[in-house]
Amino acid sequence: MDIQHIVIASPMHEEIKRIIEEKGIKKSFRYLSDEEFTQADLDWADAFVSFNMKGQFDYRQLQWVHSLGAGVDRFLYKKEWPENVCLTRTVCSFGQRIAEYCLSYVLKDLQAHGQFHTLKQQKKWQPMTPGLLNEQKVMIYGTGEIGQTTAKIFSGFGVEVHGVSLSGKAKEGFKQVMTLEAHYKKLTEMDYIINTLPLTEQTFELFGGKVFSRLSARGFINVGRGASLNEKALLDAINRNNLNFAVLDVFAEEPLPEDNPLWAHPNVIITPHISAVTTAREGVECFIDTLRNIEADKPLFNKVDAKRGY
Amino acid sequence: MDIQHIVIASPMHEEIKRIIEEKGIKKSFRYLSDEEFTQADLDWADAFVSFNMKGQFDYRQLQWVHSLGAGVDRFLYKKEWPENVCLTRTVCSFGQRIAEYCLSYVLKDLQAHGQFHTLKQQKKWQPMTPGLLNEQKVMIYGTGEIGQTTAKIFSGFGVEVHGVSLSGKAKEGFKQVMTLEAHYKKLTEMDYIINTLPLTEQTFELFGGKVFSRLSARGFINVGRGASLNEKALLDAINRNNLNFAVLDVFAEEPLPEDNPLWAHPNVIITPHISAVTTAREGVECFIDTLRNIEADKPLFNKVDAKRGY
Repeated sequence: MDIQHIVIASPMHEEIKRIIEEKGIKKSFRYLSDEEFTQADLDWADAFVSFNMKGQFDYRQLQWVHSLGAGVDRFLYKKEWPENVCLTRTVCSFGQRIAEYCLSYVLKDLQAHGQFHTLKQQKKWQPMTPGLLNEQKVMIYGTGEIGQTTAKIFSGFGVEVHGVSLSGKAKEGFKQVMTLEAHYKKLTEMDYIINTLPLTEQTFELFGGKVFSRLSARGFINVGRGASLNEKALLDAINRNNLNFAVLDVFAEEPLPEDNPLWAHPNVIITPHISAVTTAREGVECFIDTLRNIEADKPLFNKVDAKRGY
Repeated sequence: MDIQHIVIASPMHEEIKRIIEEKGIKKSFRYLSDEEFTQADLDWADAFVSFNMKGQFDYRQLQWVHSLGAGVDRFLYKKEWPENVCLTRTVCSFGQRIAEYCLSYVLKDLQAHGQFHTLKQQKKWQPMTPGLLNEQKVMIYGTGEIGQTTAKIFSGFGVEVHGVSLSGKAKEGFKQVMTLEAHYKKLTEMDYIINTLPLTEQTFELFGGKVFSRLSARGFINVGRGASLNEKALLDAINRNNLNFAVLDVFAEEPLPEDNPLWAHPNVIITPHISAVTTAREGVECFIDTLRNIEADKPLFNKVDAKRGY
């Protein structure tokens, strides 16, 4: 690839411009808001950098598209990807961010933050013993960069970490990795379930009755994609005690509509898609790393397989 | 030492008995509640195992006393310890327990659990970026087993960990360890302050105006001893914004009296001395390990220096 002209379309385009200029990258750039962006910019460019695809433009003459986010469903899900265009995504510190997010909520549960908060409001001194991480079993769906970093951090604390992936291939940090088909019988043993999977046709509403009915778990954490969860099945699972609580960072519809029943359920924690925020700096640094790899003709660690969808 | 007769006085004496019998230790034991325990038991015994000293008994003819807790101030603080009696304490999994306790509250703060909880109750979708551990600086008072395990876990996440100890001697897990005298000027940089120190005359009300007035920190966590904290100075520090919040697990008076103003302060989290609970199993396992070391004439990793007080 020979990348000379790069168009960046993002609400954060001014901040992105500052960071790229500070790095001294010698290419021609156009920095645009989503409203300013047109087909003429795409016709001029070799590469396009953004969080998503814009409307009905024609991207086929590009050489490269870089997603400033980790998920590429806004590029690929139920779309035809032009075969000759290389698609990469930001993978930089997502693993660490998501692992800390997940760990914070598992520890909140084990250390009984909620119960001690309630007791404090009643001025009640009532000791109970917190649970330890090394007594827990966790199932992590997805063994890519995010799932693996999370697995390594949890297993560093002595957690027994099981993984689920399409291939079932062994990965560092996991006691074992199972295929989707093989993993169901293991679910009954788990204390916490963490989803990090991308949205594909195989993961659409994967978390429904078939998974939840087998659980006798404490928590379900979704940091993958909202559409992988059947929300009604989740609420049923909590109400039937298959699950004590859920922590949801991603939703089929974002922002989560005010009339969605998840808001009102006391055992559901909601965060507004912040577990793997791309700061402009991180997205741009990953874009620059990728650009350098392209110029040096090195393998691209963050290249997306458009057919698999991640 | 030749230990044959062992008296155990504890409200948990029945559970302790079950565990010792299960381990098949071949010694003569007396398992007593605090009420049943008399001087005659001490006169019979070579060793005494408990959470604290009982009343005005004479312990001088014993060879060994083992504390089922980590802290030995209930054995030593403002008491004369008989020189010839070996004192050991339980050190088993306290480091790990306390580290997980501290990490849970630092992550709660960085991940803004409280703010997202409030936003959820208002059904408001309002993203903000969680802080990462590797952007934080932490000062840990105490570089013993507890301080060091906590330091290692935090620095494993990229936290810059500074330590304070009597000697100022370098220890693994700490970027640097300072003496009490030398550390004050470093306090302004810290994000979180963690106290793990034992109660001695030097640490009595150590956390008062002299420390707090230098802070511009997020949180103070006390898992050491309650009497090391001047509670009024802490509340002043929060009200003057030297500190955003405090997490207190230990108190000068326990249970914390209902009229103590700490209960009502919104920025103070209170837990009832649970960060390093000794389960009967852990205390007994540490006692058995120590007994084996005594019989094998090995060095005692958990022997207390009665003069230092820890």
